Amino acid sequence: MSEPSLEYELARRQSRRDADELWRFVRGELTAWRKDDSSKAPPVARRLEKLQDSVRQYHAVIRGDLANLTVADGWETWRRREADQLADLMRRRIDFLQNPPDCATAKKLVCNLNKVCGFGCQLHHVAYCLTVAYGTGRTLVLNSRNWRYNRAGWEQVFQPLSGTCQDAGGRSKAAWPGTADTQVLTLPIIDVVSPRPPYLPLAVPADLADRLARLHGDPSVWFTAQFVRYLMRPQQHLQNDLDAFVKRVQLRNPCVGIHVRRTDKVGTEAAFHPIEEYMQHVHEFYERRQMEAGGGDGSRRCVYLASDDPSVFQDAVNKFPDYTFLGDPSVSKTAAVSSRYTDASLRGVITDIHALSLTDHLVCTFSSQVCRVAYELMQTMHVDAADWFTSLDDIYYYGGQSPHEQTARFAHQPADGSEIALSPGDTVGIAGNHWNGYSKGENRRLKKVGLYPAYKTRDKLRVVEFPRYPEVPLVL
Amino acid sequence: MSEPSLEYELARRQSRRDADELWRFVRGELTAWRKDDSSKAPPVARRLEKLQDSVRQYHAVIRGDLANLTVADGWETWRRREADQLADLMRRRIDFLQNPPDCATAKKLVCNLNKVCGFGCQLHHVAYCLTVAYGTGRTLVLNSRNWRYNRAGWEQVFQPLSGTCQDAGGRSKAAWPGTADTQVLTLPIIDVVSPRPPYLPLAVPADLADRLARLHGDPSVWFTAQFVRYLMRPQQHLQNDLDAFVKRVQLRNPCVGIHVRRTDKVGTEAAFHPIEEYMQHVHEFYERRQMEAGGGDGSRRCVYLASDDPSVFQDAVNKFPDYTFLGDPSVSKTAAVSSRYTDASLRGVITDIHALSLTDHLVCTFSSQVCRVAYELMQTMHVDAADWFTSLDDIYYYGGQSPHEQTARFAHQPADGSEIALSPGDTVGIAGNHWNGYSKGENRRLKKVGLYPAYKTRDKLRVVEFPRYPEVPLVL
Repeated sequence: MSEPSLEYELARRQSRRDADELWRFVRGELTAWRKDDSSKAPPVARRLEKLQDSVRQYHAVIRGDLANLTVADGWETWRRREADQLADLMRRRIDFLQNPPDCATAKKLVCNLNKVCGFGCQLHHVAYCLTVAYGTGRTLVLNSRNWRYNRAGWEQVFQPLSGTCQDAGGRSKAAWPGTADTQVLTLPIIDVVSPRPPYLPLAVPADLADRLARLHGDPSVWFTAQFVRYLMRPQQHLQNDLDAFVKRVQLRNPCVGIHVRRTDKVGTEAAFHPIEEYMQHVHEFYERRQMEAGGGDGSRRCVYLASDDPSVFQDAVNKFPDYTFLGDPSVSKTAAVSSRYTDASLRGVITDIHALSLTDHLVCTFSSQVCRVAYELMQTMHVDAADWFTSLDDIYYYGGQSPHEQTARFAHQPADGSEIALSPGDTVGIAGNHWNGYSKGENRRLKKVGLYPAYKTRDKLRVVEFPRYPEVPLVL
Repeated sequence: MSEPSLEYELARRQSRRDADELWRFVRGELTAWRKDDSSKAPPVARRLEKLQDSVRQYHAVIRGDLANLTVADGWETWRRREADQLADLMRRRIDFLQNPPDCATAKKLVCNLNKVCGFGCQLHHVAYCLTVAYGTGRTLVLNSRNWRYNRAGWEQVFQPLSGTCQDAGGRSKAAWPGTADTQVLTLPIIDVVSPRPPYLPLAVPADLADRLARLHGDPSVWFTAQFVRYLMRPQQHLQNDLDAFVKRVQLRNPCVGIHVRRTDKVGTEAAFHPIEEYMQHVHEFYERRQMEAGGGDGSRRCVYLASDDPSVFQDAVNKFPDYTFLGDPSVSKTAAVSSRYTDASLRGVITDIHALSLTDHLVCTFSSQVCRVAYELMQTMHVDAADWFTSLDDIYYYGGQSPHEQTARFAHQPADGSEIALSPGDTVGIAGNHWNGYSKGENRRLKKVGLYPAYKTRDKLRVVEFPRYPEVPLVL
């Protein structure tokens, strides 16, 4: 089968990213300008509006043509097969790791599900444990007794992590890091683990790095997603409930998923974002889609709305009557702070994550783990959904991750004191993207923190040697 | 050999064109704005400058990534071979047409080289004759006695159009259109030919249309270029002179060719364009190139300068000391109106056209035939040099051509009375591109003339049934 070169896939995704960053830059500049006194004169205001609206359309058209190009290059079949083979390989490797022939002698990593945080955070805690288990070649044993969400434990909801080995017992026990000989190691939470294992996100395994770099726009997210998917394999009753829910709310495609995190998060860990801000990006998504499809199909635009605040639903329906909002406000009620750690609440958040992951684009705050989990799951359903999101705050991250670094593609001269210089090849530790064309980060060479145009850098893969699981064939 | 789909090649070129039109639009809007009173306040002026400079860089980067993509898709070898095979096929077909076994009985088309105009115009006159000869399957006999540029005739300079048949004699003679039986037909100039043959530019032959649509960004220019190249095959002494000239002025690549048409053209057929306007586009070319190459090579930027006004050279050198200007001001002197129709002047214009065609990008006024001929010749030296030009006035055209039509890709709502509406699929007769994002033309359905965003249309191929020359094998 014919297949694309790495360079081709990188250039194809890079062109798309360039166009996105151009649009964010223009939108950011003009939006800021329109809030400024110098724009109050009607001729200036009109010009700014026209400019912004026009560039938005150009951007949609460029994205549309790049989508056409991707279909027409003839490599979609290869991409689909490669994605399936890689995902299948990871599933079989984790199966192999988690089902040792003799549990009594197997090397184990014990993970306690007692991290004091919400469901998304706890799920990421277990995913971190499973990643370290994969990196150390140890079977993960999850201790979920007295789980705050379900006293009966993880296996009441999700499939057990092993069919042969759920016993944490063993000949020798120690806390991380122990020694290579220690049979049972207990792993603390990522926030305090010491020494830090090299396997922490955003690492990608050396033996798959080249294939992932070619296949996917964000290999580290893809890698994490494989563990998250493995963990979230539902018990049959949960699967039935999820299927029934999707049917009841009539979730269809295309649909944009928006997750409006409010209540206890606002003012402490994140800022308030009005529904209008989410919907602006939903609008842009459908405008792009219309260009890609060469015209709308006339059906009403679908939005799946998830929130921990039930009043958001009525607000959205009132303000955006042209959209069909799917979702279940009663799910939000269970997310209220008072009832959060109940089985109904757990069902609610899993349902929202599941439904969000089935949409075609997410508009949310990546400061929220719920949305990051939905984004991760998306990656397991499509060849490359790396850019199927609009975050209103953070870039994607994994709590406790190793530094997220980028490489400068082009030189940059700072325009003012808020910016930093770049030379091609410089390493930059990225702290965030302001979604206005600029990212913020530290130029490691200059040891200076500041803004720089996002398109002048690209992500640097953190390639780490993981076990290569030679016992598991590459292709079945 | 693996080859790209038509849809892929169209999407690839379309993405590039979208990006170019976006940049022209932003540059056009901001340039106009900066001339306006509302931009005089320093904060507004600074913002406009920053916006324009930034979008220029984004554009260069997108173009660079699309260039990388084109190299990395692995189909450059196929493109090169396809281009060579098509050009060779056309050469062999014209050879076949022009060298009948028996000149006494061959059907002929006679063309008189007496059109009262400059060299480029006369060359296009003969190219039109050769195109109609190709379309009617008649051997072209060129009557160039008393040619205003060289009394001894065309063959003193260029190779004869036939090795077997330069005699216009025959059994029956008539003026166009005659009948199919008429042995010798005389063709008038394109401006008055009646009835108009279907073969006039911008027609492309049906039997090559699909291949050309896949290979080339402007198939009609490619087709015309094959005839122009055939006509301009130099005699050995001219070839020697051209080679010596290129060596003497040290023409190298990359180099931008600029053709500054002044003297009798200005104020009558075209507007005055200062050297700064040309050089702005030269600057943009090198900026793009730097992004494509991932950094400049440190050598001085080369410009080949051709003009009919010798003072332009000194002006350019004075104002742009960072560039190396190649060319020969003495060539301009021979182009002075007083000495235009001399052999020295003929040599001069041929030399300029030759040198311009050897560059990597043309900045010129397409109202000038010299630049259009250089642009046509460019197409015979590269796989697809359709966008290797910046015209300061007209879009490419062929004097006397059939209407140049486009098809609307997207709907457009007029923003004001100067614009016209478009619905997808509408046919638009294009009159020009204002190079600010907008083209002007007539919506044939609405019978309304006005402006529309250039990216919302694409060129419509005029596919015409020409003889298919079954006697000439497709591949040798």
